[in-house]
Amino acid sequence: MSKTPFDHLVKQFSLLPGLGPRSAKRIALHMLTKGRGSMIDLAQTLRNTADQMKICSKCGNLDMIDVCAICASPKRDTKTLCIIANIGDLWAIERTHSYQGVYHVLGGVLSVIDGVTPDNLNLSDLEMRLEDEEIEEIILALSATVDGQTTAHYVTDLIHRRHNQINISRLAHGMPVGGELDYLDDGTIMTAFKSRRAI
Amino acid sequence: MSKTPFDHLVKQFSLLPGLGPRSAKRIALHMLTKGRGSMIDLAQTLRNTADQMKICSKCGNLDMIDVCAICASPKRDTKTLCIIANIGDLWAIERTHSYQGVYHVLGGVLSVIDGVTPDNLNLSDLEMRLEDEEIEEIILALSATVDGQTTAHYVTDLIHRRHNQINISRLAHGMPVGGELDYLDDGTIMTAFKSRRAI
Repeated sequence: MSKTPFDHLVKQFSLLPGLGPRSAKRIALHMLTKGRGSMIDLAQTLRNTADQMKICSKCGNLDMIDVCAICASPKRDTKTLCIIANIGDLWAIERTHSYQGVYHVLGGVLSVIDGVTPDNLNLSDLEMRLEDEEIEEIILALSATVDGQTTAHYVTDLIHRRHNQINISRLAHGMPVGGELDYLDDGTIMTAFKSRRAI
Repeated sequence: MSKTPFDHLVKQFSLLPGLGPRSAKRIALHMLTKGRGSMIDLAQTLRNTADQMKICSKCGNLDMIDVCAICASPKRDTKTLCIIANIGDLWAIERTHSYQGVYHVLGGVLSVIDGVTPDNLNLSDLEMRLEDEEIEEIILALSATVDGQTTAHYVTDLIHRRHNQINISRLAHGMPVGGELDYLDDGTIMTAFKSRRAI
């Protein structure tokens, strides 16, 4: 078996995030032995997805329409902009039903290790939006990691350089709701102490 | 986003072994944002694989020809039959280049928990092969798990009932080569002691 379609399939699966050569082989074998119909179905769904799903040209969200349903909705508060790293983060916030503003997806965070520079992020679109739209508040909903916070600083600088009047905030850091103190890392406990709130 | 192609894609990915809803979503998002060409490629490869890969009607191996290259090879010793649970096991043995006989893939092992009964395994074909082919030795290369060994017992009984003259062996149990004693589980150490060999 030098270069069969099976080998190509394993190769392509193994390039997906979270999968390696072994898990890719297990998946490909499973599909071949437990029902080829599922392979045809998956092939069709992949095509449909590639054809029909669009990245919103305004915010970077994923939807079947461009601009996306959130940007197009008259119910959303277009003066509040939430900046997130990835589309998954957007969905996580939408699941809470607690935010009524609009979004801007950066497409990642700055990272020295992964070689992500400001040019790789969706920042020029952000600057255009700040010029064109009447945005009053920006919420930086970036991960509480080194890369996330570096990105938050960078974006804050970028915005303040030209738009001093815009309020910028970041998500609160502290104990996760339902989290046990004993199991928290030292950094979180320190932050939760420093940011304690009067009751 | 109620039922988009994206949702279907996540659903189908999440049904694959080793993937759940979250990893499926990560993979689908990765493909959509990091290059749709890869989705079309994967769709094509899935189709090719479903069309071109065949399960060998003799031994259950996977190949582009039926019967497979191993069954068809005049170099293999057809009097020695190695019984394995899955195609992946066959490949693992082939990688060692130490076995020159032919194979028979059961398609799994007996399992009460997973509801795998003898009817779900490729046993009737095995019985036919024992009638038709001149097999002198059978090697049971099944996992050293409870299910694997249960299956080995079951298959041994099945063979001995009709073919008393066939030699049946199983793979040796003991310390893995390169394994440190201190890190081995008690069962393996006990087995290794009981099966000690004179030097």
